[in-house]
Amino acid sequence: VVVPSFAHSNRILEAAKPDDIAARADVVMTALPHGVGTSLIASVAKLGKVVIDLSADFRLRDPELYAEWYRTPHPAPALLREAVYGLPEFWRNDILNASLIACPGCYPTATTLAIAPLLMERLVEPQLIVDAKSGTSGAGRAPAQEFQFSEVGEGIRPYKVAGAHRHTPEMEQALSAASGQAVTLTFSPHLVPMSRGILACVYARPTDPDAPESTYLEALERAYGYEPFITVLSDRLPDTSHVRGSNRVHVTARYDRRINMVVAMCVIDNLVKGAAGQAIQCLNLVQGYPETEGLDAVPLFP
Amino acid sequence: VVVPSFAHSNRILEAAKPDDIAARADVVMTALPHGVGTSLIASVAKLGKVVIDLSADFRLRDPELYAEWYRTPHPAPALLREAVYGLPEFWRNDILNASLIACPGCYPTATTLAIAPLLMERLVEPQLIVDAKSGTSGAGRAPAQEFQFSEVGEGIRPYKVAGAHRHTPEMEQALSAASGQAVTLTFSPHLVPMSRGILACVYARPTDPDAPESTYLEALERAYGYEPFITVLSDRLPDTSHVRGSNRVHVTARYDRRINMVVAMCVIDNLVKGAAGQAIQCLNLVQGYPETEGLDAVPLFP
Amino acid sequence: VVVPSFAHSNRILEAAKPDDIAARADVVMTALPHGVGTSLIASVAKLGKVVIDLSADFRLRDPELYAEWYRTPHPAPALLREAVYGLPEFWRNDILNASLIACPGCYPTATTLAIAPLLMERLVEPQLIVDAKSGTSGAGRAPAQEFQFSEVGEGIRPYKVAGAHRHTPEMEQALSAASGQAVTLTFSPHLVPMSRGILACVYARPTDPDAPESTYLEALERAYGYEPFITVLSDRLPDTSHVRGSNRVHVTARYDRRINMVVAMCVIDNLVKGAAGQAIQCLNLVQGYPETEGLDAVPLFP
Amino acid sequence: VVVPSFAHSNRILEAAKPDDIAARADVVMTALPHGVGTSLIASVAKLGKVVIDLSADFRLRDPELYAEWYRTPHPAPALLREAVYGLPEFWRNDILNASLIACPGCYPTATTLAIAPLLMERLVEPQLIVDAKSGTSGAGRAPAQEFQFSEVGEGIRPYKVAGAHRHTPEMEQALSAASGQAVTLTFSPHLVPMSRGILACVYARPTDPDAPESTYLEALERAYGYEPFITVLSDRLPDTSHVRGSNRVHVTARYDRRINMVVAMCVIDNLVKGAAGQAIQCLNLVQGYPETEGLDAVPLFP
Repeated sequence: VVVPSFAHSNRILEAAKPDDIAARADVVMTALPHGVGTSLIASVAKLGKVVIDLSADFRLRDPELYAEWYRTPHPAPALLREAVYGLPEFWRNDILNASLIACPGCYPTATTLAIAPLLMERLVEPQLIVDAKSGTSGAGRAPAQEFQFSEVGEGIRPYKVAGAHRHTPEMEQALSAASGQAVTLTFSPHLVPMSRGILACVYARPTDPDAPESTYLEALERAYGYEPFITVLSDRLPDTSHVRGSNRVHVTARYDRRINMVVAMCVIDNLVKGAAGQAIQCLNLVQGYPETEGLDAVPLFP
Repeated sequence: VVVPSFAHSNRILEAAKPDDIAARADVVMTALPHGVGTSLIASVAKLGKVVIDLSADFRLRDPELYAEWYRTPHPAPALLREAVYGLPEFWRNDILNASLIACPGCYPTATTLAIAPLLMERLVEPQLIVDAKSGTSGAGRAPAQEFQFSEVGEGIRPYKVAGAHRHTPEMEQALSAASGQAVTLTFSPHLVPMSRGILACVYARPTDPDAPESTYLEALERAYGYEPFITVLSDRLPDTSHVRGSNRVHVTARYDRRINMVVAMCVIDNLVKGAAGQAIQCLNLVQGYPETEGLDAVPLFP
Repeated sequence: VVVPSFAHSNRILEAAKPDDIAARADVVMTALPHGVGTSLIASVAKLGKVVIDLSADFRLRDPELYAEWYRTPHPAPALLREAVYGLPEFWRNDILNASLIACPGCYPTATTLAIAPLLMERLVEPQLIVDAKSGTSGAGRAPAQEFQFSEVGEGIRPYKVAGAHRHTPEMEQALSAASGQAVTLTFSPHLVPMSRGILACVYARPTDPDAPESTYLEALERAYGYEPFITVLSDRLPDTSHVRGSNRVHVTARYDRRINMVVAMCVIDNLVKGAAGQAIQCLNLVQGYPETEGLDAVPLFP
Repeated sequence: VVVPSFAHSNRILEAAKPDDIAARADVVMTALPHGVGTSLIASVAKLGKVVIDLSADFRLRDPELYAEWYRTPHPAPALLREAVYGLPEFWRNDILNASLIACPGCYPTATTLAIAPLLMERLVEPQLIVDAKSGTSGAGRAPAQEFQFSEVGEGIRPYKVAGAHRHTPEMEQALSAASGQAVTLTFSPHLVPMSRGILACVYARPTDPDAPESTYLEALERAYGYEPFITVLSDRLPDTSHVRGSNRVHVTARYDRRINMVVAMCVIDNLVKGAAGQAIQCLNLVQGYPETEGLDAVPLFP
């Protein structure tokens, strides 16, 4: 039993064989550690199947940046050129026609959704502070002392701050591409004693200090008014437990005149909108299904 | 039974009567909601007893600032002039001779300890972003739906961001007083699904972008090298669970050249160094006891 | 905002008016505290609408038993005679034709599903020990100090043991009715630091001490082999987190020859199979929908 | 850094060398996995040092029982004969003169303290059901998927029920020895989403069904009235969070006439009274120190 919550199902997980996949699948999703799935992906791509990849391998456009952050040469630079970044809210048209979709990491999804609209409208300066908080499932199921219940419970801790986390260049790339300017940021991830959820708080200096707070909320509304999964909160602040188990996103922004700073906030479920849910959203686009197909679960609260 | 963890003790809590206090106490500690304890404090102070107050009433030096943030005139402006801010690491000498000590709030304690040394040495600019994370005990024991287990568990949420939290002016005052310059900040508190602990992450721009990271660690070492409760972490990041149940403080700082930003971090137990423990530390100073008397409990981990 | 996880929806909750209900509803669900909803239910029932009630008012068949445990006379003894107990696995045929369905409490659901098959086949003696463990959402959303995060977190406690909990007579009644004999039990509920989930462990002496362990698993299989929501675990023990957020049930049984004792175990999500999900299951039966309609959510793990 | 909560200390952990121990220690405490520490213990014992062992190696008196449950021959049957069971409340005099003390496991400590007085006075039958609940630290710090935060959080699960847990014979041995009769039991341990604490609920049939509930409380009072660490709760039920971080024990008992069953309950902190605290309590006895020396920490609540 790999996933005990599927105890009621009699589905058997089988090892993936490229020939079977060629014969039986229209679209292939891969979710392997970085560097592991490339040859499988290459052989599947050769057969003309669309690949939706949840690893880090095809997220960074620049193979040298990949080599720098993952400390290994990129395993398939040729394939990399075909990859599209799988964040539908900003690259929907690219995804529709893509052959290889690189699903974003969980932190970049939350961060990009929080602040990209403000950057696109040049409402804030492109130097950002991202203070993000994540549940433990982001670290995967492989056992490690630092993620044991006794080590995590009843405590919060930052980790890999000040440019040490591999999602840093991915966020910079996504925000730069979305807004057409060079965006840089410092990233402070934290581990929170909960299983699921990411909260990204992004601090940015407004380009116009006299703009009222509504400026930022309106920009979010303009960007997301027709998005099927995003709710712009105007009179409340977000809570990861209000999107848990769903592909939904809550975003908002506030302005503090005290030091002239905007704070944009976004919550997602890292395992859904931050991973598998986003992959299904891409699948729906690729296959011409309604974008919310299979993704209409209401958040589980409490 | 008020405090069930004292089930083994047969101590009876009695209502406080000013006459009894006059006769029996050398020092009086008060921990009432703001505005409630002032007349008691005034009558005790008249008797020449030292008062250590854990409420918000005597923390802000300026009665007008108090009126603005607590939406009520200050209840005892005359007494206010005698009050000393009870953070021994920066006002130890004042505390030694004080008649009225206003113990800091939990967020201001963590924030001030994180960044004051860097401000005092003019290593960072005095406009700060404080992204702080707290356990639920900071909200007290009065029942409220928003602090029920089912509402808090498995989620993290910001609250009162962008200048809405009453600890904002207290932090600005403490940091300004400690460093001799006007310090302003935006404050983003968060509620974390844990009972105890505060983590303050303070972002500040360095005055010298070419200074190496060690600059900031060395400043913390200079400030706290002889402090009995503070450990400067050089090669690890802090975790609230490593100080839980103790008066101990872990601080560190990192520098991210990517956007030229220093992040200073501090963890405390909000109920000990952030409240009762700090009051006892002040008591020890006032009475001439060793400063660590009664405060030598090792953190409870896990 | 009453339910923040529905932030994406623009549905407005309206106060229920009996006339509206008469005009617009086919089936009416009520979930009010005991004693509060009776007149509404009576007026709706008069209109020939089927009522599915989640309160305690119509669960106990005997109005005197109700009066004894709820310390108030039964508010509608006449209606009580029409009520059917809404546990489809044992009263499916009655529910199909019912006009008033009393949905079971969360503890009685878990306990009955765990042990009723063994009692029905006379495999165990009808004196039971029920040691059950519940998350905090069972207590509702009304604020109370004892359910604040800081009071519940990092601890487990029994409450209302030894005949003090109102679900005791309900469990005895359900098990007696299902098995055609007088069943009595002692009930020990516990509060666990989690939001959702109930685990019921039922201890019973076997009628045949020489029967092998498989006897009990086979009885569960016979009872539940065709049930759409129940999985009998043969080689694993249940975990509440494996059914969270779903209407699913995991049951199993073990035999300890050491003191000649069977332990039957059942996990449910108290807010789904233990409350709203079960009500929908009843609704599906009443309306002739597929029994799993609207209830196919996979458990959320982790 | 092995124990991060000792960051303020500059103590260095050194590898234990038998010669050093001989020269420098009066008493030696060992806390190694079973089977690992025997040769060290043997060499230390030869030097006449008292050994307090927290492993499972010397708890079971009968080497054959050890071989059966630990699936390996006992590594030192000769030493085993000198071992005394380190539960001061029942074997204080033996401990005073012991050369080898085998500290009890955490479950046996809680279970024995809950029910032994009732068995010693022959108030209950010697066939018991022990339904116990533990935090995760009982499993140690070695990483394992089943103890990762994401797998444990928000769920409760039984494990090794019906005679599969190695503490079963230890509990039977301790209760039989304490009460002078053959005690048997079925043991159902559970994993609770908390780091520390054990709650043992012991169900036993009274020998006199007409005895009032006070009978059982009085027996607990007689047994523990002068015990420094035990509080008998008369009007409340225990909660693990009320003893957390301390060597304290809360016990109580209730009687349910409904099925003629006594339930005795005990809470301890599994890492203190269930492990290291108990070892220190034994050390104090051996060395003639006050029994509470070093063990006066008040429970940390919340």
